[in-house]
Amino acid sequence: MQPLVISIFAFGILSAQVLKLDQSPYAKLHDVPVSAVTMGDGFWSERRKVNVEKSLPTMIQLLEQHGIVENFRNVASKNSAPHNGPVYTDSDLYKWIEAAAFVLQSGDVPFLHAKIDELTDTILSAQEPSGYLNTYYQGVNASKRFTEMYRSHELYCLGHLLQAAIAYYRATGNRKLMDGGIRYADYLVENFGPEKRPALTGHPELEMGLIELYRTTGQRKYLEFAGYLLSGVERERLHLKDSQIKYMFSGVPFTSRTQFEGHAVRAMYASCGATDYYAETGDARYRQTLETLWRDMVAHKMYITGGVGSRSQDEAFGNDYELPNAQAYTESCAAIANYMWNWRMLMVTGESRFTDVMERSLYNGTNSGMSLDGTLYCYRNPLESTGEKIRNEWYETSCCPPNIERTLSSLPGYIFNTSKQGVYVNFFHNATMDWHLEDGAKLRVRQSTQYPWNNRVEIAVDPAVPAEFSLFVRIPEWSKTTAVQINGASQHGVAAGAYYEIRRRWSRGDHVEVTFDMQPRLTRANTLVRENVGRVAVERGPLVYCLEQTDQPKNTRLFDEELSAGRGFTEEFSRDLLGGITVLKHNGSVAETPLEDEPLYAALEAPKPRSKPVTLTFIPYYAWANRGQDSMEVWVPRQ
Amino acid sequence: MQPLVISIFAFGILSAQVLKLDQSPYAKLHDVPVSAVTMGDGFWSERRKVNVEKSLPTMIQLLEQHGIVENFRNVASKNSAPHNGPVYTDSDLYKWIEAAAFVLQSGDVPFLHAKIDELTDTILSAQEPSGYLNTYYQGVNASKRFTEMYRSHELYCLGHLLQAAIAYYRATGNRKLMDGGIRYADYLVENFGPEKRPALTGHPELEMGLIELYRTTGQRKYLEFAGYLLSGVERERLHLKDSQIKYMFSGVPFTSRTQFEGHAVRAMYASCGATDYYAETGDARYRQTLETLWRDMVAHKMYITGGVGSRSQDEAFGNDYELPNAQAYTESCAAIANYMWNWRMLMVTGESRFTDVMERSLYNGTNSGMSLDGTLYCYRNPLESTGEKIRNEWYETSCCPPNIERTLSSLPGYIFNTSKQGVYVNFFHNATMDWHLEDGAKLRVRQSTQYPWNNRVEIAVDPAVPAEFSLFVRIPEWSKTTAVQINGASQHGVAAGAYYEIRRRWSRGDHVEVTFDMQPRLTRANTLVRENVGRVAVERGPLVYCLEQTDQPKNTRLFDEELSAGRGFTEEFSRDLLGGITVLKHNGSVAETPLEDEPLYAALEAPKPRSKPVTLTFIPYYAWANRGQDSMEVWVPRQ
Repeated sequence: MQPLVISIFAFGILSAQVLKLDQSPYAKLHDVPVSAVTMGDGFWSERRKVNVEKSLPTMIQLLEQHGIVENFRNVASKNSAPHNGPVYTDSDLYKWIEAAAFVLQSGDVPFLHAKIDELTDTILSAQEPSGYLNTYYQGVNASKRFTEMYRSHELYCLGHLLQAAIAYYRATGNRKLMDGGIRYADYLVENFGPEKRPALTGHPELEMGLIELYRTTGQRKYLEFAGYLLSGVERERLHLKDSQIKYMFSGVPFTSRTQFEGHAVRAMYASCGATDYYAETGDARYRQTLETLWRDMVAHKMYITGGVGSRSQDEAFGNDYELPNAQAYTESCAAIANYMWNWRMLMVTGESRFTDVMERSLYNGTNSGMSLDGTLYCYRNPLESTGEKIRNEWYETSCCPPNIERTLSSLPGYIFNTSKQGVYVNFFHNATMDWHLEDGAKLRVRQSTQYPWNNRVEIAVDPAVPAEFSLFVRIPEWSKTTAVQINGASQHGVAAGAYYEIRRRWSRGDHVEVTFDMQPRLTRANTLVRENVGRVAVERGPLVYCLEQTDQPKNTRLFDEELSAGRGFTEEFSRDLLGGITVLKHNGSVAETPLEDEPLYAALEAPKPRSKPVTLTFIPYYAWANRGQDSMEVWVPRQ
Repeated sequence: MQPLVISIFAFGILSAQVLKLDQSPYAKLHDVPVSAVTMGDGFWSERRKVNVEKSLPTMIQLLEQHGIVENFRNVASKNSAPHNGPVYTDSDLYKWIEAAAFVLQSGDVPFLHAKIDELTDTILSAQEPSGYLNTYYQGVNASKRFTEMYRSHELYCLGHLLQAAIAYYRATGNRKLMDGGIRYADYLVENFGPEKRPALTGHPELEMGLIELYRTTGQRKYLEFAGYLLSGVERERLHLKDSQIKYMFSGVPFTSRTQFEGHAVRAMYASCGATDYYAETGDARYRQTLETLWRDMVAHKMYITGGVGSRSQDEAFGNDYELPNAQAYTESCAAIANYMWNWRMLMVTGESRFTDVMERSLYNGTNSGMSLDGTLYCYRNPLESTGEKIRNEWYETSCCPPNIERTLSSLPGYIFNTSKQGVYVNFFHNATMDWHLEDGAKLRVRQSTQYPWNNRVEIAVDPAVPAEFSLFVRIPEWSKTTAVQINGASQHGVAAGAYYEIRRRWSRGDHVEVTFDMQPRLTRANTLVRENVGRVAVERGPLVYCLEQTDQPKNTRLFDEELSAGRGFTEEFSRDLLGGITVLKHNGSVAETPLEDEPLYAALEAPKPRSKPVTLTFIPYYAWANRGQDSMEVWVPRQ
């Protein structure tokens, strides 16, 4: 297939960062523009190619087919056609626009460019003179406008409109859609607030959008309105119930939260917005709450895949240590929101523990959300399956597909950072940053690697003129021993789970070589995760592995297997399998007769079926369910 | 407190069986009237006393308070008051009436008697001349009548009305309520059917009610209409979706089912109705489907407590072996429905495997559904808990409380059976049956036992005149070695999991002594029940045991414990604990430092906290959550 990307010049005419933090007083790190980073061949470039060539074109077709664009036309023409899709579906289109706009930040793609312009006209044709814009609450539902904010997603949709419009503005300088978003935001700011009508995000998201709008326009009212939303003071005026407060993760002061609960994506987006708010205000109560919530998540509520939100019911967090495998909900959007939140936490702290969570989510619980061919999506990302259909082309609630798409298209913006001290290398991939230090000195940093399959990364540091600054290289927490060489000289004191700071005077031609410990690892869960007692997960580098039925010996059945003791993995790169993956093999055993022949319950002392040795084959979790519906398991019983 | 039961004469003037099977051609066993069995002191009599003195009086108060009775008055007076409670709430009142009517079958209780008469008048005042009666679909929703049978519960409510009315008729001879039910049933039969309007139970239940009405009135049209409902031929006329077919367990031929799926109570009630249908028709396809479904349940989908329905989502069965503990849904109603279904299966087969399931459900997953004081109920019955509030006085959906109440009040009718060969002893409790053999010969059978605490049961068999017949004594499948003596002489060939048939000429004074193996047992689950890998359950006799936090050593935490190897249980009857229970103690160990201090995930080789020995104390599962909210666990990790 002919690639649709016909130009790779830096089309972004502005500083097209994911987050514009250069004026944010409490951001320690600052984004490097998407347009300043060129990704070379490798793991993510394959995914990004599919994203542009397959995912985005098919998804906009589907959005058209399901009437999501038609909704705007119907409102504009004031016809009485019923609204298509759920109440929040405007946001799905906005998120597609954002995804496409991030593509444009890396280089023009005329089809996407033209499509966004066309959609901008369609969307704005539905906007009311007041600025109000929400296809569900225009027309027959107009009387309910702003009367059911606990479910209406009116503010949520505006948040996504703003994010999409800003991404497009940053890609092209075209502010038409952003001006539409501003009109709606201004309508909100003028009519709602402590002394005006009460507002509630209901599904947090607008907080992020407004703060990015503040960063883009410099207008402080947007930041203040985000602060008002986060302040959660409208509980009484809006008669909110306890169950709503819990579910929505809004409605009470964000700073009163002490644990994650309720709808996972809501909680994560609220935390994103709160971190953005902290980056601008430095309000210590926010920082403390965010730290408390983060510790709650990583100690009690996060899957090994970086996914969150254990329960189908309410798409919610479970209790501490409630991390079921087959029943895991772990919506793709929640893993992405976790990634987005940890990015913001990284920006305000510079601490690699947040980057570690991002990497976990990105390579596993997010990456699993889209099929290798880019046309099928997971809504749920369970860690065990008996082979139900998990990937679908379309969901009535189509939040996840464009969310994955915007993550992939914005990826160049997450690889590097700058700070006053120098440059950060967060993620490892063939990639070249053409940017500058914060003092303005031009700098190119170029990574060469076959990560995550290979454990070596070469980083060439080429300042335009020699300069003293620090290169911060992230050493993942999983790489217990890491070798770092500078121009061939071995370095000491390299610690896992930290940025390794190399402060020196850098000159053109300097290079750093990093060698990670990528031995396959066996990981156990806390005994309080009841389902994983006696079971282990296999990891290698940033990747969580799994067993899929099709790779196992014939006449054996997944869930019937045990991993034998010992670490003896065999690694094998298989170019033709699942887009090219490193396969891991390990000795195990299976029962000689099917476990289905055994009773459901038996006396402990009753004889069990005899077992026989087999070789178990593990593939990366993200790649499962790409060869039809099949059983899969991440946590494997161990002898 | 003064007992409300003021008369113990056999008030039931008719043959007041739970099921009237004496004319059912394919019933091998036949019910003994509730009124023919007097229960003495013991395990269930305590529960039944609380049921009459506390549960039934408080529940009718709550039904009144929540407007469930008022709904009928509102319809009768044609006022425009909104309907109270969910769409199906008429049935909650009917089920209360059925529960109270079964009490009357054991002896008059004037308060209950008068209350039913009063409620009968109230209910019938709302009935339309056509016979139609459903408070939700009278008044403002009348136009939707019979247009949304997939959710309307109109037929479900009629089913419960018939069951209640029949129980009351059998207790008292008063057929006023039953005649009301018949008018509605006749309306249905006249207007719906293959050549008329299409009908669907949506929530199966009416099948049972109609067949019991057939058995009571002899009118075959009710049996035929039940057969029509079970035939599931209206899928096309009603435009039913696959997901509805699955969820409702109706809408396609019952005989096309090959596994349990969808809403558990619906599936169980459908199976009850289908078994009733088989008992009347002998249709072999039904018998085969029922057998297939039963095997599916006991091999893949039943909790050790006899509960079924793993998922909160849709209150549904899960996949095979999907039996989560903390997230178990296991609605009380589903355990009861399982009990009801297995009763019917026992009646048509005479096989004790069905009685075994009944006992499991009755003593554990059903009995757990009501607090010891009779005023708080479980809707869910999980097998593990971190201490959430599980028992409540009232549920908006109040199906479970009166369901437990009717189970308790009808209990005397389940202890004995007759067949052409003689008498069956299904359950063990101090109880006297004054009834007759199927040839009419009068017979008293009297059990003396302290079951389930004690393993001995004495059965005195006193025929009015000496006669040859069989006494079938159920030997539970868990009693691997059982001693049976007849008049002191030991018997041979006693097998677990079967009725032990003693055929002889019986004379007044004959007695049988049965001694079960009640050693505490350690039970493991099939490895395919992923959550229970490496864990065991403790059972003793019919009781499943659990650990509750409050009984464990101070400074230890449940979920932090492991059971040590070896069977060494200590048994201790504690009269003052939880109404009098046998407590089991076993050696175990706990971590010396809290597991909460450990990370969520760690390398397999990383050191674990050291453990120290403790004594673990087990109580019967049914008795948990009677001392406040606390952690609980049935499946315990084992070293």
